[in-house]
Amino acid sequence: MRWKKISDAVVRRLPLYLRVLEDAHRDGGKDLMSSQELGQRAGVSPALVRKDLAWFGEFGKQGVGYEVVFLKQELRRILNLDRVLPIAVVGVGKLGHALARYFQGRFEDDPDFNLRVAALFDADEKKFGVRVGELEVRPVSELAERARELGIKMAIIAVPAESAQQVADLCVKADIRGLLNFAPVKLVVPEGVRIANADVSLELQRLAYYLEG
Amino acid sequence: MRWKKISDAVVRRLPLYLRVLEDAHRDGGKDLMSSQELGQRAGVSPALVRKDLAWFGEFGKQGVGYEVVFLKQELRRILNLDRVLPIAVVGVGKLGHALARYFQGRFEDDPDFNLRVAALFDADEKKFGVRVGELEVRPVSELAERARELGIKMAIIAVPAESAQQVADLCVKADIRGLLNFAPVKLVVPEGVRIANADVSLELQRLAYYLEG
Repeated sequence: MRWKKISDAVVRRLPLYLRVLEDAHRDGGKDLMSSQELGQRAGVSPALVRKDLAWFGEFGKQGVGYEVVFLKQELRRILNLDRVLPIAVVGVGKLGHALARYFQGRFEDDPDFNLRVAALFDADEKKFGVRVGELEVRPVSELAERARELGIKMAIIAVPAESAQQVADLCVKADIRGLLNFAPVKLVVPEGVRIANADVSLELQRLAYYLEG
Repeated sequence: MRWKKISDAVVRRLPLYLRVLEDAHRDGGKDLMSSQELGQRAGVSPALVRKDLAWFGEFGKQGVGYEVVFLKQELRRILNLDRVLPIAVVGVGKLGHALARYFQGRFEDDPDFNLRVAALFDADEKKFGVRVGELEVRPVSELAERARELGIKMAIIAVPAESAQQVADLCVKADIRGLLNFAPVKLVVPEGVRIANADVSLELQRLAYYLEG
C-alpha cells in the first residue's frame, strides 16, 4: 500500500471531496475551487480539507485554490478509481438485486463512475441464470474462478446473517480485498482485507438514540 | 436529549453491544457476560466497552461481568428501542422497495427488533397504491399528515440525488428527527435533526483506496 500511515478518517473524506469536484466539473464552470468552498460543499472545515489533501501532495496554491480537473484526477488516482473496478454482488435476494441495479444505473448514467458490478452470485440454485440487467446470477461455488477471470477485488455481501461469514471466507479465498457487508453480523477476515459495514439496522438504531425520549 | 455530552462515537457502538447481548440471549444460555467477551464479540477492546457503558450508569460488577438481560433492557431503553419505532420509507424504487421488504422481514423474524416500516411514500403517481407487504405506497404530499397520525420520527430517504434535499425538507416539516439517507448527496437540515448516511458508493470508493495500486 502506498500511504500506509494515513488514517481511515482521512481516507473516508476523499470520496466526498472527489464527489464535490465531479459535481462542480459536471455543472460546468469553475476551473478553481478554494478550500473554503470545497470544505463547505463536503461538510468539513477548510483547514481539514487542506490538512487531508496535504497527506498526498501539494495540490493547491495559496490564495488561488485547487485546480478542479487536476485535483479530481489526482483523487481518482489516489482512490484507485482511475480505472474501472469490477465488483461482485454475493446474494441476489431483494437487497442484492436492488444494489446490483443501483450500481448498474450509476455506471450507465455517469461516465466518471468507475465501480462496475461485473458478476452476481447466489447459493440458491433457483436463482442461477436469473438476469439482472446484462448479468446472470452464477453459483457462488464459481466465485473464485470468476473473480480471477474478471479481476474482481471487491464484493458486496448481501446474504442473510447466518451465511455471511461463510461468504466472506469464500471471498478471501478468491483474493477479494474489500468487502461491503450488508449482513447484520461482524465478519472476521485476515489482515489485508478491508470491510466496510453498510448495516442499515445499526444506523437506524443509532439514530433512534437521538430521538427525544 | 438526555445525555447531551456523549460523543457519537460512543453512541455508534451501543447498537453493536445490544446486538451481541441479543444474540447471546437468543442462543440461550449465559446470564452473565464479561467486558472481555462483549468486547471481543463487538470488535472493540474490553476497556472501551467498560468506558462506553460507564457513561450511562453502573451496569457491571467487578469480576462478575454484566447481567445479559438487564444490560440488554438498559441499552434498549437508552437507544429508545424499548418501544416500536415506526419508520417511513420515502422513495419506493428498487432500493426503497428492497429496504422496506428487508425491514418488514427483520421485524417479522425477530420479536426484539423494534424498528417497523409503517409507511411508504413516492412522488410518482404510477406507484401510488402499489403494495409492499401490508403497506401501500402513498403520495409524498401526505407525508406530514401520515407521520403525525402514525407517530413517525424517522425516515429512510431512497430517492435520486436530485430530489433528496427536497424530501429532507418535507421530512423536517413533518417533524421527523432522524434521516437515513441513501442518496449520494449531502443533505442540509436544521440542528436537532440527525442524518446518517448510508451512501454505498462512498463506502465502496473508500474501500477501493485500500486495494493495492
